[in-house]
Amino acid sequence: MEKLVVIGGVAAGLSAASVAKRLKRSNIDVMVFEKSGYISYGACSEPYFVSGLVPRPEDLVEISAQEFEEKRLVHIYKMHEVIEIDYKGGYVTAIDLSNNKKFTQPFDYLMIATGAKAKALGVPGETLEGICTLRTVEDAIDVKNSVSSGREVVICGGGYIGLEMAEAFVSLDLNVTILKKTPQMLLNFDPEISALVEEEVRSKGVKIETGIDVLAFEGEGKVEKVVTNKGEVKADAVLIAKGATPNVDIARQIGIKIGSTGAIAVDEHQRTNIDRVYAGGDCAEAYHIVLGKPAYIPLGTTANKTGRIAGENIGGLDTKFGGIVGTAVSKIFDLEVARTGLSLREATKNGFDAYATNISHRSRSKHYPGGCPITVQFIAERHTKRLLGAQMIGKEGVAHRIDVIAAALHAGMSADDIYGLDLAYAPPFAPVWDPILVAANKARKG
Amino acid sequence: MEKLVVIGGVAAGLSAASVAKRLKRSNIDVMVFEKSGYISYGACSEPYFVSGLVPRPEDLVEISAQEFEEKRLVHIYKMHEVIEIDYKGGYVTAIDLSNNKKFTQPFDYLMIATGAKAKALGVPGETLEGICTLRTVEDAIDVKNSVSSGREVVICGGGYIGLEMAEAFVSLDLNVTILKKTPQMLLNFDPEISALVEEEVRSKGVKIETGIDVLAFEGEGKVEKVVTNKGEVKADAVLIAKGATPNVDIARQIGIKIGSTGAIAVDEHQRTNIDRVYAGGDCAEAYHIVLGKPAYIPLGTTANKTGRIAGENIGGLDTKFGGIVGTAVSKIFDLEVARTGLSLREATKNGFDAYATNISHRSRSKHYPGGCPITVQFIAERHTKRLLGAQMIGKEGVAHRIDVIAAALHAGMSADDIYGLDLAYAPPFAPVWDPILVAANKARKG
Repeated sequence: MEKLVVIGGVAAGLSAASVAKRLKRSNIDVMVFEKSGYISYGACSEPYFVSGLVPRPEDLVEISAQEFEEKRLVHIYKMHEVIEIDYKGGYVTAIDLSNNKKFTQPFDYLMIATGAKAKALGVPGETLEGICTLRTVEDAIDVKNSVSSGREVVICGGGYIGLEMAEAFVSLDLNVTILKKTPQMLLNFDPEISALVEEEVRSKGVKIETGIDVLAFEGEGKVEKVVTNKGEVKADAVLIAKGATPNVDIARQIGIKIGSTGAIAVDEHQRTNIDRVYAGGDCAEAYHIVLGKPAYIPLGTTANKTGRIAGENIGGLDTKFGGIVGTAVSKIFDLEVARTGLSLREATKNGFDAYATNISHRSRSKHYPGGCPITVQFIAERHTKRLLGAQMIGKEGVAHRIDVIAAALHAGMSADDIYGLDLAYAPPFAPVWDPILVAANKARKG
Repeated sequence: MEKLVVIGGVAAGLSAASVAKRLKRSNIDVMVFEKSGYISYGACSEPYFVSGLVPRPEDLVEISAQEFEEKRLVHIYKMHEVIEIDYKGGYVTAIDLSNNKKFTQPFDYLMIATGAKAKALGVPGETLEGICTLRTVEDAIDVKNSVSSGREVVICGGGYIGLEMAEAFVSLDLNVTILKKTPQMLLNFDPEISALVEEEVRSKGVKIETGIDVLAFEGEGKVEKVVTNKGEVKADAVLIAKGATPNVDIARQIGIKIGSTGAIAVDEHQRTNIDRVYAGGDCAEAYHIVLGKPAYIPLGTTANKTGRIAGENIGGLDTKFGGIVGTAVSKIFDLEVARTGLSLREATKNGFDAYATNISHRSRSKHYPGGCPITVQFIAERHTKRLLGAQMIGKEGVAHRIDVIAAALHAGMSADDIYGLDLAYAPPFAPVWDPILVAANKARKG
């Protein structure tokens, strides 16, 4: 019987495990090692657990370990960290974190789905109680506990997670301060769109301080203040939300190739450079269709897909991952903020002769009550008018409109092509010229 | 100076008029003749005028005749019907309906944008007061007046307009009965999706009677009852909503080719078979990209686009209309109901070896409160798995998701291609496997 060892029990790991098992059935034995105490959790829902919209930690879990084992017929080892891979010997060494016992597990196939870890600031006092990051369910519980007493919360970082958590904290009636190095929130967005986000976040009572270098955290055991280049900020709790880096230490051990993005390099079958070793999810790169090369954009959707592709190939099929275009959406207070493809900055940096055009148009017919303005930026290639990316922001109608542009990027459409799309119209949902078409019309004129 | 006469002052006519004028400026004089008392109205908003959401008839108008004349520098003749075209003589004869005076207007270019008219039942008593159809603003005012006294309203027809009007009437606290010949509502939808619509409509207190032949309307001057093959139905007002047929009488006069759909045949420049005579909007066919041939699907979006293309070509440009895929959405009580491309019935009728697959999946992450099931049907071609169409229904998240499929149809994507789309994910807006991807996965195995 073949043996598949999967390192990591969230989206990519579990997808690979269940698909490989389903395909090879009694010819394969699948063991999943998950370092944390939870498998199959939805990290993107953690802000809503902190706010209370999602009541219990278990509600963050898609499927429990027990149910997964019973239904998918794979073995789940929670609280087990794989600390060493002996590739030639064909086994991994895992440690049971509940009792610190080590044991070895042979494998024929290996799936690396070690995910990503939160970036640290690397400043003194960072391990004080009350200083949190947010990746695992345990992290979310820690955040929730940390803000349960005291009212002053500091968030270091102004990306999706920082802003979604600002909303969660405000809903708990906490005083929230965001400390940022750069003047702009959501750095991979256009400054104009970021400014609209910042305006929204400030309007909800969140303080935003820019140009801040965090120098240290101080307190007696528990954090009490943040020391910065511009003075001290009182803090009963701190969330460090500076982004994520791929967990590639164990992969490096056996010489798995790391791409220029810093994540594991894989081919379209999710194979690494080492035979019978696959990778996917937040520890791996993915081919970016618009860029025409690998990129590192760790998202749950990609993790599920690349895990499934890995599982199919381990399972004997010959399937390929078609790649990503970098689509993402976030609810930030009352705003929907979305992007797909490249920003103007990314396009230019990658050698495209690109330009950007902005429009604002109604989300619904002007005849129909309600609705709001939607701002749409298109980024296109100068000589071909091929769309390279888009960004959108508004109080409604953004989250799925961005997917129309994502489909257009997959198809390599030009602004003219998008202008010609036959989109749905009814007054409660869109104006007769949808914001997408208005944006395309502006972009095609360059 | 060249002269352009435009027959019809709504979406297609006004788009053609303003674009041609903008391009040729002082070299062209543009005259628009509109039979009704309003130009530039949004017929799709009329149900919301009847319900009161849109307060005044003027609110249905995008731009007034006076403002249009001032801004776009074209002449608008409201309440003017063009009753004859002398093509060889190069003039039209119009009648001013306010005083029944006739006059002639020379032209070099002619734009036929005569729209469509509501189908009549052709039964005795159909001209009684209180029996309405719904196309123009005057129609909408008439409907609103007709239901202002009495409580029993009968709708003949179960298409978009009939159902949207049922919602409007229910909001006015009227008793609504829908009489239908066929057992299914929304005939161009799949029976399973139609059944969900019917359930919703009935749950709002609307009576639906099927297998009904309307034989006559009776009343003293004003309608009082509908006589059917299954007995009489009391009616203080009646809306006949059996669909629309293109207004092609004036086009036939000068030998303009009518396509097999019954609407005016045009090429991709919106040219008819007669030199310097263009057509667009609800009186004309449009090339259907999935069918690969012209279709008659009268919608405001297509009218705006084809009008613009006609105007560009009259204005000296060489632009082409890329065609339609038949995308439409309707709000029916609390449901969003949408389709694009072909239904299974349409696909089969047109010679495709087609199959349909249905799925139901959540509109949001299961971790996030709210949300609803969305039912998605994909219609695909057997041997290529190319998508031919899709239908969707749910209480949220349908109206723009259908546009993703519309883009996929424009690009000729297969179910596999759609399954590979990098769509946006955040718990408030979608599950990590979006209903579109779940539907694609089922269809690709289909």
